[in-house]
Formats: sequence, C-alpha cells, structure tokens
Amino acid sequence: MSLQSFQAVNPVDGLAFGAQYPEQGHAEVMSAVARAASTRDSFAALSLSERANLLVAIATEVENLRSQLVTIAHLETGLPEARINGEISRTIVQLQLFATMVRTGVHLGATIDLADPDYKPVARPDMRKMNLPIGVVAVFGASNFPFAYSVIGGDSASALAAGCPIVVKAHPSHPGTSLLTFQAVQSALQGQGLSPDIFTMVQGRSPEITHWIALAEEVAAIGFTGSALVGKLLVDLSHSRSVPIPVFAEMGSLNPIFISAAALQERAREMGESLFDSATLGSGQFCTKPGLIFLGGASEEFIAALHSKMNTVGTQPLLNKGISERYNSTISELSKHPGVETIVGKVPDQGFIVQPTIFILDYQLYKANPEFSHEHFGPTTVVIKCKESDFAEIIANSEGQLTATLHLAQGEIRPELVTSLSGIAGRLILNGAPTGVSVSAAQNHGGPWPSSSTHTTSVGTDAIYRFLRPVTFQGFPDELLPPALASNNPEKIERLVNGVRGLN
Amino acid sequence: MSLQSFQAVNPVDGLAFGAQYPEQGHAEVMSAVARAASTRDSFAALSLSERANLLVAIATEVENLRSQLVTIAHLETGLPEARINGEISRTIVQLQLFATMVRTGVHLGATIDLADPDYKPVARPDMRKMNLPIGVVAVFGASNFPFAYSVIGGDSASALAAGCPIVVKAHPSHPGTSLLTFQAVQSALQGQGLSPDIFTMVQGRSPEITHWIALAEEVAAIGFTGSALVGKLLVDLSHSRSVPIPVFAEMGSLNPIFISAAALQERAREMGESLFDSATLGSGQFCTKPGLIFLGGASEEFIAALHSKMNTVGTQPLLNKGISERYNSTISELSKHPGVETIVGKVPDQGFIVQPTIFILDYQLYKANPEFSHEHFGPTTVVIKCKESDFAEIIANSEGQLTATLHLAQGEIRPELVTSLSGIAGRLILNGAPTGVSVSAAQNHGGPWPSSSTHTTSVGTDAIYRFLRPVTFQGFPDELLPPALASNNPEKIERLVNGVRGLN
Repeated sequence: MSLQSFQAVNPVDGLAFGAQYPEQGHAEVMSAVARAASTRDSFAALSLSERANLLVAIATEVENLRSQLVTIAHLETGLPEARINGEISRTIVQLQLFATMVRTGVHLGATIDLADPDYKPVARPDMRKMNLPIGVVAVFGASNFPFAYSVIGGDSASALAAGCPIVVKAHPSHPGTSLLTFQAVQSALQGQGLSPDIFTMVQGRSPEITHWIALAEEVAAIGFTGSALVGKLLVDLSHSRSVPIPVFAEMGSLNPIFISAAALQERAREMGESLFDSATLGSGQFCTKPGLIFLGGASEEFIAALHSKMNTVGTQPLLNKGISERYNSTISELSKHPGVETIVGKVPDQGFIVQPTIFILDYQLYKANPEFSHEHFGPTTVVIKCKESDFAEIIANSEGQLTATLHLAQGEIRPELVTSLSGIAGRLILNGAPTGVSVSAAQNHGGPWPSSSTHTTSVGTDAIYRFLRPVTFQGFPDELLPPALASNNPEKIERLVNGVRGLN
Repeated sequence: MSLQSFQAVNPVDGLAFGAQYPEQGHAEVMSAVARAASTRDSFAALSLSERANLLVAIATEVENLRSQLVTIAHLETGLPEARINGEISRTIVQLQLFATMVRTGVHLGATIDLADPDYKPVARPDMRKMNLPIGVVAVFGASNFPFAYSVIGGDSASALAAGCPIVVKAHPSHPGTSLLTFQAVQSALQGQGLSPDIFTMVQGRSPEITHWIALAEEVAAIGFTGSALVGKLLVDLSHSRSVPIPVFAEMGSLNPIFISAAALQERAREMGESLFDSATLGSGQFCTKPGLIFLGGASEEFIAALHSKMNTVGTQPLLNKGISERYNSTISELSKHPGVETIVGKVPDQGFIVQPTIFILDYQLYKANPEFSHEHFGPTTVVIKCKESDFAEIIANSEGQLTATLHLAQGEIRPELVTSLSGIAGRLILNGAPTGVSVSAAQNHGGPWPSSSTHTTSVGTDAIYRFLRPVTFQGFPDELLPPALASNNPEKIERLVNGVRGLN
C-alpha cells in the first residue's frame, strides 16, 4: 500500500505543482524487485537481435513522447528546453549505440580454446568462455540528468543491453518525467511481446527505499550517479550484505584545470571565457564541472575575463530545494574567508535561482582551507593563483577525479604532467573543458576513488561490461552451449578461437 | 628491525627444520611497500617488449633453479616431487603466456575515436582510451600452490604484465621456497637492468603484516588466493580504508557435482573412481576439489567404487599444522552424525598425514545439517543421495561456486540444468572433474561470492585485466600520447579505430 504521495516542485518558483505521485512502501518496492527477478532467465535467453530490437523500440517510444517529455522535464527541473531536447537525443543515441553493439555480440567476449592434447604443461580440454548477464540491476536515477542518467539513461541502457532486468529508483526531483519515460519503456516491452516485469520502477522521497533495494537479495548490481554521500552509502550497504554486490557509483569530481604560464601568456582571455562557460553550464550541475582552476602564471587577464563573463550570465535555477540550500550555505561560508576575492553574479532571488560565484585565492590560502577543495554543486568554481612548480604537489595531494584538464601553449610539451595527471583521473583533456561527455567507444567516465567506486566507465559502450560476468563451459557439446559458443557460430559474432580473432 | 624469526616445518613429521627466516616488523613492511611504490611510474613506462622480456627472464631464472626449488618445496609442503615439478612448469608457462600477450598489446584495449564534427548528438573531439597499470599490487601467497599461486604465481605474473610493481606477502608454510623464488625474480630484474624495488617481498607469521599491507596508502589493489576467512578480512580492510581498493580474492568453493540417474546407470563405477581421484588429489587441497557430489539416481555402484578406491589410497600429508588440525576436528565432528555412512582410509598417524574420509548421507539429512555444505580443506568429500528432481532446489539454495560439474548419460540433453548452474558458478564442466585448471584465454577461475570477491578470473590471460584501469586522452597530439595511442601505432598493436579492429 502507498502510504504517502508527493508532487513535483518547479525550481523557478519553488512551488509544488501537478499530479500526486504515490510513494511506494516496503511491500511495493520488494514486489518491484521480485517481479524484475522473475524475468532473469527468460530475458537473459533472448537472442542478440531480440535484445537489440528492444533497445531500438525504447528509443523510438522515447522519441514519440519527446514533446511531452520536454514539457514536463522543463517544469520539473528548470533546465532549458534546448538542453532537455539535447539530452533526450543523447538518451536515444545511447540506446541505439548499445543496440548496434549488441547485434555484433562483441560484448559477449566469446573465447574458444579447442581441446589440445599437446597443450603445455598439461593437455587442455575444450574450453569456451563468454560473458553472461549479472542478474537484476538496480538503477538509481540522477537529479541532474533527467534522461541521460535517469530512468532509461546510460545505466539502464547498458544493463538492458547486457541482458539484465532492471528495477529503477526514480529521482524524486522529476517524478512526472520519470513516469512518462517509464511508460515509454513499457510500451516498447509490450510492442516487442516481452514481459513488463523486465523493467520495474519505484518512486518516493524516503531514503528507506534506497536501503530496501540495495539490500534486496535478488539485486545483483547497482548503477548510481549522484553525490558522494549516497554513493558511499550504497557501497556501505553492499558491504553489509551477506552476499556483497558490485556498486558502480559515479560520485562526482572537482575536475581540476591546470594552466601553464605560457598558455596564460598566449590565450588567457579565451580560456577564462570558455572555462567560465564550462563552470556555469547547466547551472554548474554537471559532475564534470571544473571546480578548481590552477593558474600557473600571470592571472590578471584570465580573471578579467571571468569578470566580463559574469556580467553577461543569465539566470537558471538549481534542480531542487536541497541543492539550492546547500549551494547558498556553502557560498556563504566560503565567502567569509579573508583574503579571498569573489566574483558574484547579479540575479534575482526567486525559487531555486542562485547567484553564480567565483572564488579567487592564492595557493597558500587554498592549502590552509581544505573546504575550497570539496565539490560544490552549482554555478561556482575556485581559481587558485599558484606557480607551475606547485603543480606536482597539487597533483600528488589530489583525490581521484573523473577528469583533469591541462592547458598548454602551442607546441609546449609537458609529458611529466600528463603522466602524473593520468594517475589521478579517468579522462584527461588537453586545451579544452571537461564538460561535454561524448558517448562513444573511447569514452571513459569514471576515475579513481572517490570520483567513482570502481575503475569502470558509466558513459560509452564499455559501460555494458559492468553488468556482465564471465562463465567458462568446459567439455560441452554444441547442443548444450549458448549460441555464442556453438561451433558453427550461428549468430556470426566476433570470437577469439585458439587466439585468432574473427567471425570464426 | 626483525623482532622474530621462524623455521619451516616438514609436514611428513611435523618438525621444524633448516634456516631461521626473519619475520619482518612494521618498519620493514612499510619500507617494502614504499620501495615498490617508488618504481610505479618508471615501471609503467617500460615498453611492451621490455616488460615481456622481464617476464621471460623470470621464467628462465625459475627454470634455472628448478632442482633446488623442487627439493626445498618438497620438504616444506610435503607435496610429491612430480606435482611440484608440474607446478613449476605451470608457473613458467604462465609467465610466458603473459609475455606473449604483453607483446601483442591487446591488454591495453587501445580504442581511438577520431574527432568527428558530424557525430550525433554533438560533435566529437579526438578521444583515445587505453588501459594503464593500476599501481602497486599486494600479492598474498597461497599455501597450497607454492609456485603457481605464490611468490611469482598467477597474481604476480599478471600484475607485472600489467605494469604494476609488487609487494608479496609470502605464505609462512614455505619460507625457503618463497625466498629462493624471490631470488630468481631479483636475478631477472638485475639481468634486465631494472630496479630490484619493482618486486619486494616480506615474510612472517604475524597476521599484523596482512593488516599493514592491506591498509598501506600506496597499495592500489590486492591479489589473494586462500581461505574465505582471510579473503573476507582483506575485503573488510579495504572497505575500512579512506580510499578503498579492489580486492581480488579467490576464496575457495564446494565445486558441486550433479550426476543424472541415466549417467549413474551408464557409468557409475567410472565416475566414482575419477571423482574419488579428483577429491583426494594433492590431499584434497585444491580450491576446485569436488566437495559435494549429488547422486540423482541409483547410488550403490558409485559408492562401491569409492570403497574400492579408498583401499588403494596412498598417504600424503596436509600442508601445515593448522590445516591438519582443522581437518581432523572437522572430520571428527561430521562423523558423529547418526545416519551418515563414512568411508575411511587406513593411513599412518604421523606428522600432518590425515585419514581420507568420505561421508555419504541422504538429502533430508544433508538439508538438516548445514555443516556438511561448508568447505573442508583436505581429502574428504560429501556424497548426497537424492533425486534428480531435487537438483533445482539444491542449485537455487547454493552459494556462489568456482565450478559446478554435470554428469549426463551419452546423448542426454538438460539445458535447464546448464542454465541454472551457470547462475551459481564461474566454470561449468560436463562429464569431467573440476580439478585441473587449464591456463588459457578461455579459462575462468572465479565465481559468484563467496567463491570470489569479484567477477574476474585469477587464472588464464584475462587475469591481467584486474590490474589495469582505463584512461581516456581527449584532444592530445601524438607527442603527448602514450605510444599505444599515437597515430602511427609505433608498437603495431591491435587497436579499435572508429569501430574497426586491426593493426591500424
């Protein structure tokens, strides 16, 4: 039974509006998990093309609902319609990319070592290995990506592609968006003649729901994008289980920017403008927002560019009350430090709209006040005036990051910085900005702890490997093998047979 | 300073012998970790061929010391010389296989997505991803594999192949074997002109050493083969760190065998004999020992075969005092259950030599006494008389296993059993025995919790992926890229460029 219900809140005015969404109780949450679990074997048994067709069908259903989705998501998140449209496109592209991958079967990692009586040091039996779906995946939707990392975002798309049923805990900041997206998925399942229980969803604001799902015996893995606090809670919950499960938590990052003295001399204004845009894009609510900018040389022109940009900044609310309250209290605390220069935007005080604020301080002050090196969600960044010779110490003391960015002058070669940055981040960017995460095979969105809980990517096609586990079949005849491992390769997938890769 | 020292113990007579091995104290352990960490960047920077050459050189040095290694290992472990020779060969083969793999560069997973202004939904920058070494790996040697899972066993070979420096905690049951193996590695490092600190080792019996290493800030990952108790301790220690690290623990398994009624009718004696051999091989001290045998039909002939084999069994000691004491107390406890038939070997009572013992009971009794379904290290197994119709329930209630074996009659096809067994184990065997773990690409040695802490393999070439982490380089020119990602592919490795795999 649903004990409570809740409404969405419009971030522009901070007022609740629209439908009452029932908050699921314990029995309903457990039922959602159990229903997903009941489809585990049948969903795993789908052919590659059946699974790919489902992904394409979901993409089509999302596209069909685009205008309705834009309307409700705009009201619930305060994000501009153009951004929402772009995010829906990305969500559709993600589903299509995984469909294409699934058709090739490359994710199965099919590997066959034929029996070899002369194998050293002992004779080898017939061994055939492939990746199987891990089981039910629990997906926790993110507040800041109402599509690309929510109900049918990257975690769900990659888990479905892997062959895993899903239970989604929708983010309570966008319940109507979540429900409509869920209905798109259900339409696709129905259209493909598949069980609706392959994909279940629960809604609610109670933190208990997260506990119930993370501790449910049937849940085999967790996909999460959000705060370090909740990410670590999920890791703790998994650790407390009698059977721990992998938790793939992307927990955010400071995404430090390192700018050489020569680069500042060459193009300080251009970098100041583009990094200002990157830091305030989407109200600074990206996990790849540049939160720390280290200036290794003359800082005046760079800072002047930030001032100019701040005069032109538009207003955009934060996603919800909690985020806006945390932002305002953080900014207020950081602003109290003597010796810190601030650049503050002038915007109306309304709903969850907040003032963009940039802090500028020197390296000694930065080192003495660790609160400047915490992640602050929202339109703010911290600029540190230092020397290039400080970079090594800064990197050595850095926590794990999703990204690290290096700005060098044309022709400047600093391999030692690239090497040390590669030790602290999952993606390095040269002469660019960390926001804008391309969805492709070469993407890596994930980095050392605490930016992520594991060394895996949650963006791009490799995200599928999080939800697969290898199993070897030793001495099995074709009749008892999955098609991917049968001798005649009925699905014509790429395999490694006795060390030779091909469609053999 | 070394506060204490200890001697090896000969399992045949239970007496200490030979050299005094110093037990490392806190400062020495921390120094071993720090020295390994000091080589992290320089070792990671080796070319593929330099790293492959090191692995081959280590294999050669081990081969050069073979006769000395056999002598000392035989004295310290009580394992037969033939078995030790075979295990040394396997250790050498493992090193050579990883050398071959490293030369191809396939483990780097080099993936290049060229810049594409027309990419959807947004223009794509130049993105290049590859796997980098994870950092210092701590390897905890196993008692039951003095070579293949000890100082330079599979964990060390795969971590070195990945480019990770290593600190080994040698198993105190074979200190002389460990020291001599360590010297082989050191000779190889010296011969290749590499730092001795790439590979450090500590010895001792104190459990504190394990804590110090697992909690050391510089340690980036742990490789472990051993008991569930210590494996779970390492997982707990990692979880308690401010920066948790991946723990790749292989913690053993019951390796259940399921035999159909038709198979029993067809070849009960043959299966009884071969599974007896598998259960008592190496005194039953393999993590793949069949610990549970479920007979789905007539059991008389199978059990008669076990009786016959027990009359022919030779004597072989267990590895150390702790293992033999635990074995004897377990056997004594299990033997007290009324209604349980036992088949007991007749062997002398000397040193760590123990009596092989097989327990036979019916399914109801088995269900009522969970102690029969715990792992018991040593020459024992539990035979359960049940019906084929019980298999589904048994599998549904099973914990995670390294392996599961199915015996069917010729032409018998039971896909539903294969599917359900694939959910509980990392390797399935048809009509064979789980012992004998082939070292090849298609091997998977690892299964669901609690058999392993992660869904990875510790045997075979895929073991290398445990010690690598992906990093994407966005917008970098060739001069600042690792060779594996440079446009001209100077190392001629297999890469995926815009979705096309090849030497491009």
